[in-house]
Amino acid sequence: MTMLDIIENKKNKRELSTEEIRFFVDGFTNGQIPDYQASSLLMAIVLNGMTDRETFDLTDAMLNSGDVVDMSRLGGIVVDKHSTGGIGDSTTLALAPILACCGVYVAKMSGRGLGFTGGTIDKLESIPHFDTALSEEEFFQVVKRVGCAVIGQTANLAPADKKIYALRDVTGTVNAIPLICSSIMSKKLASGADTILLDVKYGSGAFMPTPESALELAEKMVAIGTLAGKRIGALITDMQQPLSDHVGNSLEIVGIIDVLNGKKNRLYYEIREVAVKLLVLTEKYNENSAEKAFQNAIDSGKALKKFAEMVEAQHGDDSYILHPEKFELGKKDTVSASRDGYVTGMIAADIGRAVTHLGGGRMQKSEEIDFSVGVVMKVAIGSKVKKGDVLCEVYHNGKGLEEAKRLIENAVEIGDIRPCEHKIAYAYVDKNGTTIY
Amino acid sequence: MTMLDIIENKKNKRELSTEEIRFFVDGFTNGQIPDYQASSLLMAIVLNGMTDRETFDLTDAMLNSGDVVDMSRLGGIVVDKHSTGGIGDSTTLALAPILACCGVYVAKMSGRGLGFTGGTIDKLESIPHFDTALSEEEFFQVVKRVGCAVIGQTANLAPADKKIYALRDVTGTVNAIPLICSSIMSKKLASGADTILLDVKYGSGAFMPTPESALELAEKMVAIGTLAGKRIGALITDMQQPLSDHVGNSLEIVGIIDVLNGKKNRLYYEIREVAVKLLVLTEKYNENSAEKAFQNAIDSGKALKKFAEMVEAQHGDDSYILHPEKFELGKKDTVSASRDGYVTGMIAADIGRAVTHLGGGRMQKSEEIDFSVGVVMKVAIGSKVKKGDVLCEVYHNGKGLEEAKRLIENAVEIGDIRPCEHKIAYAYVDKNGTTIY
Repeated sequence: MTMLDIIENKKNKRELSTEEIRFFVDGFTNGQIPDYQASSLLMAIVLNGMTDRETFDLTDAMLNSGDVVDMSRLGGIVVDKHSTGGIGDSTTLALAPILACCGVYVAKMSGRGLGFTGGTIDKLESIPHFDTALSEEEFFQVVKRVGCAVIGQTANLAPADKKIYALRDVTGTVNAIPLICSSIMSKKLASGADTILLDVKYGSGAFMPTPESALELAEKMVAIGTLAGKRIGALITDMQQPLSDHVGNSLEIVGIIDVLNGKKNRLYYEIREVAVKLLVLTEKYNENSAEKAFQNAIDSGKALKKFAEMVEAQHGDDSYILHPEKFELGKKDTVSASRDGYVTGMIAADIGRAVTHLGGGRMQKSEEIDFSVGVVMKVAIGSKVKKGDVLCEVYHNGKGLEEAKRLIENAVEIGDIRPCEHKIAYAYVDKNGTTIY
Repeated sequence: MTMLDIIENKKNKRELSTEEIRFFVDGFTNGQIPDYQASSLLMAIVLNGMTDRETFDLTDAMLNSGDVVDMSRLGGIVVDKHSTGGIGDSTTLALAPILACCGVYVAKMSGRGLGFTGGTIDKLESIPHFDTALSEEEFFQVVKRVGCAVIGQTANLAPADKKIYALRDVTGTVNAIPLICSSIMSKKLASGADTILLDVKYGSGAFMPTPESALELAEKMVAIGTLAGKRIGALITDMQQPLSDHVGNSLEIVGIIDVLNGKKNRLYYEIREVAVKLLVLTEKYNENSAEKAFQNAIDSGKALKKFAEMVEAQHGDDSYILHPEKFELGKKDTVSASRDGYVTGMIAADIGRAVTHLGGGRMQKSEEIDFSVGVVMKVAIGSKVKKGDVLCEVYHNGKGLEEAKRLIENAVEIGDIRPCEHKIAYAYVDKNGTTIY
């Protein structure tokens, strides 16, 4: 077997064998297969596709290129949720305590943000003293005792993915379902949960532009997860506007505390949707009992308390959770409507970029994040506005304010016709098929 | 413009602009574009194709990456013939003097052989003292005075092709019409002839396996040559068996002398076909007058004399041309038929390999060639043979004899049913379209 044979096979639309896929992943990861052969194969995969079996084998080979976390010693159901990313996506922070209140473990390893706003880990670090770098042992202890914990990715998960992704990024081979799927799923499967809910977003602030393309990716990922023996489902959700009204680091924690206090906004309904689907996937709940458990966790105040408990267990100052007014914010400015009308659309990505300009995200890995800056949206798609109404509050410390305001002004589109309502979820995919809402 | 945009465009089946193609060729040739991006684009071209306009631009950019020979100072029609290569293909050596006798210039730069047998330059060097490395000035003088000359490629023709070909070779991107076409045509157009006949071969000893695939390549090359303002046509010819009965270096010179002496074998008819087509392409001849001119060049003995004249002008010992028995050959052995029947097929490539085993070709660039070894076929496809009949003579100096004989025994297929006759040409392509014979 040579790499050249493998390239020829994929070029000629033949299905690659398990051995061929492993030969490529292992050889490329250990440096024996040069970049120029790998990129040639990747382009052939982009254009000729991969079957579910091939995609599973690719995922499996990448997953086995590094550590695989063993969660079985927790002795219970371990759930995980993966979002393909978006602006103001802080759902994990509410889901972890809510699901822990419902009797399942959430042991989450998250990433830092690059490009737009901060990642989940950055948001958590806006809570003073919060430790996102627990040892593996302490991480497991917190999960066992509290029911949930969120740390930065420490284990060496799927190093093959890192290397392949870096090459894809510079060879025009990013946008291909089998490659996106194996990249996400190799890391997800390596992190050890047995029940997984994927949140695949579409729209201007997301990776996939249309609901159809997001659905195609979701179906492939569910197929791969099922082949790997996981209980897995995928929601296709709208990212046409920021998920949370609060975009920033401290600000998103504040937004999450609102939800845990029962504030029924867009983010609340999205979190409920994800939580219910996840609980049903565990097979310990049906739709009805899952909704009740969710409601009870919020209404009883247990979820908020659980969040404070997790923060305390991870050495953070839990007084901030019960008194979110303690979060220090930047100076307040506003962006106002330039005309009367309806909010017809938002360029969510540009709102993320605005926050980065304020110092709330990083363009390079080494940059420091200013937790106190961000944006609080006062309108959503469909809102009626009059000229001069406040569209959003901008919290800043001087840096990048003009550029941020300019981006937001352009990002919020105001027109004459009231747009139809945006549903949160477009479809749900489980191993039995797809339901379009 | 970035290389990534160009890859994305071709991946998404968009036609690349002239500027994009030039950006790639120039950037890759001067080392600014890395191998892994070039191979990704090449695979996208293999799978998504190129229009004639794109292929022309690719050819043109490669051609302009190096020297372009100016033949206009010869002040006459300069013809060239390009064969996609095959076993026993020594047609150039007869065509040069024949065409010179017909009043057109042949100023040919040829390559050395690698893999099977020797190249045209190796064959010529089997004539004692023949100089294939004339200076450009002396080369032009010989062409002007004698009408023809054949030298090794000295000018820096299409260096981009060398670099791109080396990458294609290791990235599974060799077999794609636009890439093969631009590789051949960039060198051909750079070498300066105004009238070009392409001889595109198909069959076991050729690059393209079927007449249909050879035709597709031929049509593309004619389109590109026409766009470049050349008078150009392409013959699709059979390479199911060695073109000449004589395969080797000295031996092929002997075979050519036979043709110039009027021996009407397979090679003779092939050479006549090419010569007539080339003369018609010049527009100085029609089919009828071209055939007459060809016949006259041979029958009058002028073509043989012209060959001797060219050899002498290139400092070779022309007595070998008039007395080919002077060529020193190896010891003679034979391969005999193992059964009664008809010769139903030949694996031409294996006959080439046999000669290489004897020392008549090189597997690595640095190897010395033994001019005195080779094979003289005594049968052709369709020959009736009895067990024990001599299939071919093998001239050797001990080296590789057993391996060569084993290869030839397997290469000559003997069956019970007389095969149908193989036509020399399957089709002819000119700028007005294709004629299938």
